[in-house]
Amino acid sequence: MNGNPASGHSAIYPGSFDPLTRGHLDVIERAAEIFDCVLVAVVVNPQKREPLFSLDEREAMIRKSVAHLRNVEVDHFRGLLADFVRARNATVIVKGLRVVSDFESEMSTALMNRSLSGVDTVFLPSDPRWSFVSSTLVKEVYNLGADVREYVPPSVLEVMLSKRPAPRS
Amino acid sequence: MNGNPASGHSAIYPGSFDPLTRGHLDVIERAAEIFDCVLVAVVVNPQKREPLFSLDEREAMIRKSVAHLRNVEVDHFRGLLADFVRARNATVIVKGLRVVSDFESEMSTALMNRSLSGVDTVFLPSDPRWSFVSSTLVKEVYNLGADVREYVPPSVLEVMLSKRPAPRS
Amino acid sequence: MNGNPASGHSAIYPGSFDPLTRGHLDVIERAAEIFDCVLVAVVVNPQKREPLFSLDEREAMIRKSVAHLRNVEVDHFRGLLADFVRARNATVIVKGLRVVSDFESEMSTALMNRSLSGVDTVFLPSDPRWSFVSSTLVKEVYNLGADVREYVPPSVLEVMLSKRPAPRS
Amino acid sequence: MNGNPASGHSAIYPGSFDPLTRGHLDVIERAAEIFDCVLVAVVVNPQKREPLFSLDEREAMIRKSVAHLRNVEVDHFRGLLADFVRARNATVIVKGLRVVSDFESEMSTALMNRSLSGVDTVFLPSDPRWSFVSSTLVKEVYNLGADVREYVPPSVLEVMLSKRPAPRS
Amino acid sequence: MNGNPASGHSAIYPGSFDPLTRGHLDVIERAAEIFDCVLVAVVVNPQKREPLFSLDEREAMIRKSVAHLRNVEVDHFRGLLADFVRARNATVIVKGLRVVSDFESEMSTALMNRSLSGVDTVFLPSDPRWSFVSSTLVKEVYNLGADVREYVPPSVLEVMLSKRPAPRS
Amino acid sequence: MNGNPASGHSAIYPGSFDPLTRGHLDVIERAAEIFDCVLVAVVVNPQKREPLFSLDEREAMIRKSVAHLRNVEVDHFRGLLADFVRARNATVIVKGLRVVSDFESEMSTALMNRSLSGVDTVFLPSDPRWSFVSSTLVKEVYNLGADVREYVPPSVLEVMLSKRPAPRS
Repeated sequence: MNGNPASGHSAIYPGSFDPLTRGHLDVIERAAEIFDCVLVAVVVNPQKREPLFSLDEREAMIRKSVAHLRNVEVDHFRGLLADFVRARNATVIVKGLRVVSDFESEMSTALMNRSLSGVDTVFLPSDPRWSFVSSTLVKEVYNLGADVREYVPPSVLEVMLSKRPAPRS
Repeated sequence: MNGNPASGHSAIYPGSFDPLTRGHLDVIERAAEIFDCVLVAVVVNPQKREPLFSLDEREAMIRKSVAHLRNVEVDHFRGLLADFVRARNATVIVKGLRVVSDFESEMSTALMNRSLSGVDTVFLPSDPRWSFVSSTLVKEVYNLGADVREYVPPSVLEVMLSKRPAPRS
Repeated sequence: MNGNPASGHSAIYPGSFDPLTRGHLDVIERAAEIFDCVLVAVVVNPQKREPLFSLDEREAMIRKSVAHLRNVEVDHFRGLLADFVRARNATVIVKGLRVVSDFESEMSTALMNRSLSGVDTVFLPSDPRWSFVSSTLVKEVYNLGADVREYVPPSVLEVMLSKRPAPRS
Repeated sequence: MNGNPASGHSAIYPGSFDPLTRGHLDVIERAAEIFDCVLVAVVVNPQKREPLFSLDEREAMIRKSVAHLRNVEVDHFRGLLADFVRARNATVIVKGLRVVSDFESEMSTALMNRSLSGVDTVFLPSDPRWSFVSSTLVKEVYNLGADVREYVPPSVLEVMLSKRPAPRS
Repeated sequence: MNGNPASGHSAIYPGSFDPLTRGHLDVIERAAEIFDCVLVAVVVNPQKREPLFSLDEREAMIRKSVAHLRNVEVDHFRGLLADFVRARNATVIVKGLRVVSDFESEMSTALMNRSLSGVDTVFLPSDPRWSFVSSTLVKEVYNLGADVREYVPPSVLEVMLSKRPAPRS
Repeated sequence: MNGNPASGHSAIYPGSFDPLTRGHLDVIERAAEIFDCVLVAVVVNPQKREPLFSLDEREAMIRKSVAHLRNVEVDHFRGLLADFVRARNATVIVKGLRVVSDFESEMSTALMNRSLSGVDTVFLPSDPRWSFVSSTLVKEVYNLGADVREYVPPSVLEVMLSKRPAPRS
């Protein structure tokens, strides 16, 4: 196969990342193999309820966790993803898919984003080991005192521990 | 965003294409925007029941339908997709997703292919207009005498009509 | 609410009915409350594998089972449902929905039929008591010797018993 | 098929309609073909969070949007849908179905309403073009500044624009 | 089959039970046939919104409803289910499954609980008659004035009626 | 919790096991922790198409793979599972659940078996690592030449290799 001379196919990976999980990191690592560059974009949504981690904390945790990936950048945005995608001249939006129940709302969002921006979304299946690991479930068990080291990258665990006495083993 | 100097991210779009539908063509066109090159790969599976169109017919119909896309090629393969993907040095497998019920068997196949070849699959949501258009359903109504021009590209329709008297309007 | 003077809203309820189950009968009874008349239409599909009951048997069993419903008729058709629907000047197609997994293939078929005939399909949720009762599952356990009287109307049971020694209680 | 002399089969189409989308309007137009009359019934639910549009605004927007349909009426109700359905002597409840994930909660609600009122619900598959268009998603992107003219009828757009400076194209 | 001499396989059935429904009671009765003992465990979750019934009310209603089952106990817990399961030395967690949409979040929770505690969850399919009966839907229609005697055990109905004038028949 | 003096709660785990996968073995191992004894029951179904492995091969492969579990037995049956369950006086049927799409047909079968035999089915969630590993998919890639050692227990791999030249690494 001889390639298209076009260059710079960039992908945007949007999310709340409150916090980044090992599942998210797995998607980023694999997207970085597929696309020329990947921009992890933290969504700032004042209408959603108060996040557990501040925007600065979330960006810092992601930056540390992706430091080994040289074609990955981290940023945040307010407002429409469609606008951010055009502003960054991105080729595609990337999302991880864990389970079927994710699928339909993600599909609707993807079709809405295509309708608004002309930019497509591609879905990457999550590693099955992380299929049950969502930020929401991780926060829920963390708030109840669970040890979450299996589910988040080390740099995220560090911040989580600094906010709370050591978890029980 | 400054891109990865890597070049030649190529995607393989496998399928039976018996026949190519407008939904398939839509996926190809959009994949061609996202990846440097797209290889449409017709699966030759002697264990499946006799296709309606021969391999040659299917490849010819696809070639005509993608003639306007300069970074799309057409080929076929026997055996494991994982082997074909490695032989072609492809970066990624592409699949369209029409409906939820597609999702899980596609997800299992994607995870198996990753396990066998190390190559990921990305899913592109179909255009909702074609959400009900599968090759199987098109063949079923064609065999019962329906006019299928809405559901297949012109070059496919031509072959279908040559195999049968003109459909009723 | 003052009604539309239009009259004769007729619904077609298509299916293989191999055999009619209590779930099917429940859908027919409820459709007969909603529409002016309901035509139960047995699909004759030579491409599907040999049915357990002949077309005549199936039509006779349905006729007996709906004898108490004066606005229900029974017939059969070959070819496209879309053609049959237009030939009968029906207003709508009716289908029962038992479970989610029915939903998507039924939805695709419904959208294809609308595309081909302009006629819509409405779905009636099955009575949950019959949610697990499909013709296929009834035939499977009947063939293995089960007593199926809970799952089929009396007139169907009669024919089933005549084809086989009395089931074990 | 000779029809049942019964007349006045009326359908109730309940919803929040905050706001009415093109998908809703499509369901209303098709229901008006199938039933003698259709009553669009805006649910007043003080337990849900504050709607974007007042009850009066919602009713007015619907009335304008259905002005071309002479067998469609608009009203609202408080309390149980089952009670409203009996008070209006309606034959059936109508709901649109966009995607599988709608299906199960709608099915539970339908079975509960049948249990409480004896009145069935029929589901109409949405036009696939609007499969991703829900009131919630439309409001979300509207609040972030998107141009939503593709997703709502003109009379709804007008009210939306009057509440906000012109959207960006 | 000669059994394992092991004894005392105990199952924990956790839930909010706000209130206990006939569906819940059905799961308890069937779990009591399968396991040596069943502990119904009311989750105390201060992060969730205010329940309709106090913890004491909920425990009392359950106790009355399971009085006929001699291997069923009732208790409550705060914090992680995984911790409670280990503290009680339970063999397994039991959950009822009503519909597909329950399935995936329950599956994620089950995998998380196994990961945290080493204890598995088994799912029991609900009786289809109660497939549409969730605590949430029962409360919703009760709050709007519906007669809910079909959906909750008598001892629950009694408490519900004591909180409100007699429902309409 | 003091246990029920009842003893010998035995579970039947039915399946085709053509062949046993690591996913199946994982379910057996976990069921053996939960129930006093587990009977792995190979279904002999002459109506299904020719299996890849003979009944004897399948039973032998399972026996070797469960040799380390002292409360697990292996057998086979013809005819209705409901009859076999009663003949063996089993307390419960066990099934693994991998993905949502399994769920509904398994649920229908479970409800049918309960209706026929009075015996319930409990579902155990599969280990996510094996979520994509079904006998069907393993056979498919094995037939195309794949190395399947990751997906089946060693004793199964041995038989598979003896039927075919060594797989490619």
